[in-house]
Amino acid sequence: MDYKNASLPIERRVEDLLARMTVEEKIGQLIQPFGWKAYTRNDDGTIRVTEQFKQQLSEGGIGSLYGTLRADPWTEVTLDNGLSPREGAEAVNVIQRYAIEHTRLGIPILFGEECSHGHMAIGATVFPVPLTIGSTWNPELFRSMCRAVAAETRGQGGAATYSPVLDVVRDPRWGRTEETFGEDPHLVAEFAVAAVQGLQGDRLDAEDSLLATLKHFAGYGASEGGRNGAPVHMGLRELHEIDLLPFRKAVEAGAQSVMTAYNEIDGVPCTSSRYLLHDVLREAWGFDGFVITDCGAIDMLKSGHNTAASGEEAAAQALTAGVDMEMSGSMFRGHLRQALEQGHITEDDLNTAVGRVLAMKFRLGLFDRPYTDPERAERVIGCEEHTELARRVAAEGIVLLKNEDNVLPLNPKTGKIAVIGPNANAPYNQLGDYTSPQPPGQIVTVLEGIRRHIGEDAGTRILYAPGCRIQGDSREGFAHALACAAEADVIVMAIGGSSARDFGEGTIDLRTGASVVTGLAQSDMECGEGIDRSTLHLMGVQLELLQEIHKLGKPMVVVYINGRPITEPWIDEHVPAILEAWYPGQEGGSAIADILFGDVNPSGRLTLTIPKEVGQLPINYNARRTRGKRYLETDLEPRYPFGYGLSYTDFHYDNLSVEPAVIPADGSATVRIVVTNAGPRDGAEVVQLYVSDLAASVTRPEKALKAFRKVFLEAGESREVTFTVGPEQLELIGPDMKAVVEPGEFRIQVGPDSKRGEAVNLRVQG
Amino acid sequence: MDYKNASLPIERRVEDLLARMTVEEKIGQLIQPFGWKAYTRNDDGTIRVTEQFKQQLSEGGIGSLYGTLRADPWTEVTLDNGLSPREGAEAVNVIQRYAIEHTRLGIPILFGEECSHGHMAIGATVFPVPLTIGSTWNPELFRSMCRAVAAETRGQGGAATYSPVLDVVRDPRWGRTEETFGEDPHLVAEFAVAAVQGLQGDRLDAEDSLLATLKHFAGYGASEGGRNGAPVHMGLRELHEIDLLPFRKAVEAGAQSVMTAYNEIDGVPCTSSRYLLHDVLREAWGFDGFVITDCGAIDMLKSGHNTAASGEEAAAQALTAGVDMEMSGSMFRGHLRQALEQGHITEDDLNTAVGRVLAMKFRLGLFDRPYTDPERAERVIGCEEHTELARRVAAEGIVLLKNEDNVLPLNPKTGKIAVIGPNANAPYNQLGDYTSPQPPGQIVTVLEGIRRHIGEDAGTRILYAPGCRIQGDSREGFAHALACAAEADVIVMAIGGSSARDFGEGTIDLRTGASVVTGLAQSDMECGEGIDRSTLHLMGVQLELLQEIHKLGKPMVVVYINGRPITEPWIDEHVPAILEAWYPGQEGGSAIADILFGDVNPSGRLTLTIPKEVGQLPINYNARRTRGKRYLETDLEPRYPFGYGLSYTDFHYDNLSVEPAVIPADGSATVRIVVTNAGPRDGAEVVQLYVSDLAASVTRPEKALKAFRKVFLEAGESREVTFTVGPEQLELIGPDMKAVVEPGEFRIQVGPDSKRGEAVNLRVQG
Repeated sequence: MDYKNASLPIERRVEDLLARMTVEEKIGQLIQPFGWKAYTRNDDGTIRVTEQFKQQLSEGGIGSLYGTLRADPWTEVTLDNGLSPREGAEAVNVIQRYAIEHTRLGIPILFGEECSHGHMAIGATVFPVPLTIGSTWNPELFRSMCRAVAAETRGQGGAATYSPVLDVVRDPRWGRTEETFGEDPHLVAEFAVAAVQGLQGDRLDAEDSLLATLKHFAGYGASEGGRNGAPVHMGLRELHEIDLLPFRKAVEAGAQSVMTAYNEIDGVPCTSSRYLLHDVLREAWGFDGFVITDCGAIDMLKSGHNTAASGEEAAAQALTAGVDMEMSGSMFRGHLRQALEQGHITEDDLNTAVGRVLAMKFRLGLFDRPYTDPERAERVIGCEEHTELARRVAAEGIVLLKNEDNVLPLNPKTGKIAVIGPNANAPYNQLGDYTSPQPPGQIVTVLEGIRRHIGEDAGTRILYAPGCRIQGDSREGFAHALACAAEADVIVMAIGGSSARDFGEGTIDLRTGASVVTGLAQSDMECGEGIDRSTLHLMGVQLELLQEIHKLGKPMVVVYINGRPITEPWIDEHVPAILEAWYPGQEGGSAIADILFGDVNPSGRLTLTIPKEVGQLPINYNARRTRGKRYLETDLEPRYPFGYGLSYTDFHYDNLSVEPAVIPADGSATVRIVVTNAGPRDGAEVVQLYVSDLAASVTRPEKALKAFRKVFLEAGESREVTFTVGPEQLELIGPDMKAVVEPGEFRIQVGPDSKRGEAVNLRVQG
Repeated sequence: MDYKNASLPIERRVEDLLARMTVEEKIGQLIQPFGWKAYTRNDDGTIRVTEQFKQQLSEGGIGSLYGTLRADPWTEVTLDNGLSPREGAEAVNVIQRYAIEHTRLGIPILFGEECSHGHMAIGATVFPVPLTIGSTWNPELFRSMCRAVAAETRGQGGAATYSPVLDVVRDPRWGRTEETFGEDPHLVAEFAVAAVQGLQGDRLDAEDSLLATLKHFAGYGASEGGRNGAPVHMGLRELHEIDLLPFRKAVEAGAQSVMTAYNEIDGVPCTSSRYLLHDVLREAWGFDGFVITDCGAIDMLKSGHNTAASGEEAAAQALTAGVDMEMSGSMFRGHLRQALEQGHITEDDLNTAVGRVLAMKFRLGLFDRPYTDPERAERVIGCEEHTELARRVAAEGIVLLKNEDNVLPLNPKTGKIAVIGPNANAPYNQLGDYTSPQPPGQIVTVLEGIRRHIGEDAGTRILYAPGCRIQGDSREGFAHALACAAEADVIVMAIGGSSARDFGEGTIDLRTGASVVTGLAQSDMECGEGIDRSTLHLMGVQLELLQEIHKLGKPMVVVYINGRPITEPWIDEHVPAILEAWYPGQEGGSAIADILFGDVNPSGRLTLTIPKEVGQLPINYNARRTRGKRYLETDLEPRYPFGYGLSYTDFHYDNLSVEPAVIPADGSATVRIVVTNAGPRDGAEVVQLYVSDLAASVTRPEKALKAFRKVFLEAGESREVTFTVGPEQLELIGPDMKAVVEPGEFRIQVGPDSKRGEAVNLRVQG
């Protein structure tokens, strides 16, 4: 049988296999049931497949399983009933073996997992969320992180990940803001390329490579009112200029899988958009991988978008638009056969999708090496090297927003430190959404990070009180918090938000700090998928707690841990030092302590604009010049601009030049600037280059990030930083919707953030 | 000379005239300088033209003058230096005569005026703003109002008006919300048709007809963040479905003039959009009138949109896109000649635009009857009949939002009434933007309206205190207000906002009430063109004043007078009766008193959704089904839904039917419902019909208003109301961007507002 012959080209193997398959077997390849329902663990620790899995397999097979290793409250996989790193690999092998040995053709299953910021399995490394990652402005570091994530996931047999999220966020009311790299398409594109390179490695069939899935295609970061999955109001030019750019770059970098978005754009659901899935993705960009839906997105065509009156119509719309696999799969499983019989689709349509799925399995090596090595899984998952990497990503991603009178860094030798706030010692609150259960002691909280830095004196010199919860109006914890603060010489307030699903129920209880305040079961989740907000204030009584403690008049540092910007003008005004960590992951407390005590010089920069109030939205830095002047109550200046972040040292910019100053439309110029660390400490600076097109055939952003470089400079060191500015930096989507470089003047701004910098002009000749 | 021969067809006259004109004379026809700078009034009351006007005329002539009769702080035309109704007509005649007699070809000037809610000249009737007009749900009444406006304006020689505003508002942060009819395209379209019919009458050359100008073309009501003129993020389907519909209906009704919008849509400025101005407007809709820009919009192409690198490019872009006249005209005057010489435009381009302008002047009869009759102006402007009409429009447009325990209507015979609040007796605050100076006593405020209703006892039974201003934190007036309230049996609180430009400077001082509170010169303007807001709360200390007075525990009625929705949950919860008047115009106080005392049974209904908080935006009722479920802090339910409004009587709906229940795609059905006034008072009900398309090839609104009828029913009366539901109600903009009726199920809901009603299904057969 040719398809089993590894020496034949993939095309031939696919062709051979397709010819042998029944319609039922073909449809089976397009579905993806929930993987955590495919196995049970016996009392002796061994794994067996479930009757439900056998049943699905007997009904035409299973192309893929979703989240077999995923553990969280949704899957109800806990530390008690879940699988260790080694067991996870063994389970995948058991399932895979059963599928291969108990089906007519022995087609292996593709195991797809969630790895937004680390493999979402028990024991795997929890890296910072993408918003923190974006804030590192260090795609190369992210590439290393993605290599680690791929090794952990593929180590357990997971062959595909449903990441990276390439959505360009417009409105931080959106609960998934934390899952994005930020609001700028160029920045997101740079991280997109790093993700594809890091996850997929050199070869998809390597034991440490993972199929990257670009999501959510497309426009999902621009939903109405920041409401998850809500309609997107957008024309084609903005779509191509902003939202599609990161996807295009990732496809060019070799991405092989794309996930459709739930939302519609101008009346057309993305999951049934042939324009997006065929015309753009395959025809214009030459994508030759496969397309999977978001979970339940085809059902939404019938019940939500209502572009389909029946399941058959919904399934057919998705398939003919270019969807190859349905996450979950109930609509394809339930309706594709009838859709074929009723003529909504042809067998050619079916073959096209199945062929793509099979080709991917061949490329991933699943036919030839279907099993993974549990030893390797045990060795690589959560290893020391990855823990260190998680700490480094966090340390580079945390943003110093304010540091009046050099309150920071703290002297680790001085006096007592009160660590206060609901996020000071709440492990799940610093991990973000899409996180697995964590064994006690696994997560380094702010409190723990500070304790470790202080060392043996910690028992007497560190005081801790949660003070309150993220939500709710209980002030029961205020007195204890005030007492701690009164005794201390400096106060670290760890406040913000939480995307922690309710891990507190069941056998896991890691919210010990907060339970001092109230015994009530209560979720503090105020961010994450599906948790959109109508205000950007701190919730609950956090501000009040802070204000009470502030009255003591002691040095105070605020550490924000949260998934979206917070607007609290009082804090901006009154607290001398503010760190924004977003969700910094399992090593967040170590990284925060590194920065608090000056072991690390902060180098994170904002990748989204922080407004003064919710009523300023949208406030993205790269708006058009005509966006308006001000509201009656407030101007349009942000609280903190895109690209902003402080350091413990000072950087100077000198001698900006562009050469040549006049180029043809297909030419390039070199931009040079000398950056000097003029302060007393070593540190890294993010040198940012923005382009303004002074006149064009269509309107252009007032300025747009087009290049950046993170450079480490010792105290006193100077370095020339060079950038190439050419077609990629200068092009626009023209009147005919094609990319073009137009003659005219461009202003090139180079500096430390989107508001500040030197500028020089470049002219493109006609 | 053929062009002077009234018996020849207009085409021939235009052709003849064009052939005689120099390039300078042609360009002159495309410009529109400010008309208030064309004349001065001598000490003896006679009028002469200015040197500036003569100069402009000598440089190629003047096609049109803008706002010759406009009076407001911007024009610096006051009651002292401005013109009476008769003088205005005389001035226009003087200017016109000079133009005709002192130019080579004697081409008459087109006088264009602002008449958003009444002719913006001294002495003219000030009707309620469009938001109040929309709330009448009575386009026929508006048609009558437009006839009155046309008579007043044309009476003075004004031949064109820069109204109606057909923008469909999405975001009430926008300061021009008051100028719109609301958020629904069908409702706006119905008022658009009434406007065209009412303004233009049967013949454009009649002495009481006015050329209607549809504005702002297009998308201007959907600007980013509700910021005036900011970019519009929108695809073509939404554009056609929502924003273009009222324009299309108005063009079909005979509209002859269109104004371009300042904003861009997806990167293309409307003022240089050949798609909008040519492909859609002329090609698809068959429009044969002319297109004028908004003031300064061509300059904005160069400095703002930056689609033009020079004045020549900007002028050429606008002209070749389809602009025929530039409001103000500095870019056409300054650059069109060079644009022609440089080849950016051809003389044919020029001739096309000039031909359209000239044709319009012929259609308006300006060549044949260029002068107006000052006697007629004096007779018609501000006449008693128009005053009564203004009162009726206000009375029908005021919306009763809450009436707990039948607090309203008040018994006019009972006790003392305290009339309190910054809008109780502030004439300009109830007029809205685009309003001329008013002589003392001209405007019936809430206080004055109540006084007149009470009659001779008013002196002793009515207590008045402004309490505070709209803005600012002065509580100086609280004590007096509290003293008044303490003495009263019922309290009417007139609070809200203001779009009053600073009429307080100079010789006009009508803010006597407010000056009790503070002597400082201060503008209370918080709405109107260019005054966008980032919150929707009451400004200043108004809420605090109300809460203080509320503590007295007396019956209280809130009358909101403002230009956009207010979100004050405390008031919604604690005050038993709330009226929303928007800006009810010069007779607003009479109309409010009519409702307060039950002489008029309120029949106004909201034409926009009132949110609970600014963070819920956008919250338009006709969103897609996928708009989301809720925010963490609040659901997506509005405070008051679209279509909502109470009455002093109760209406019941029975026996909804549709016949036939199945129709072909080009067929129609009749929907019948019996509406009964089951309460104790006569009253009018707005019967509203909404259509839900249960499945379609593109996504559809959850429901959309497609018909409505305002019916007056005596107490106890029943009436069958019928609607035709056919292609116009069922069509959508399909995948190919063409309007189509698709087979399938539709749900027809008929009831008192967008949330409530009976429903029945209609099926369109394939």
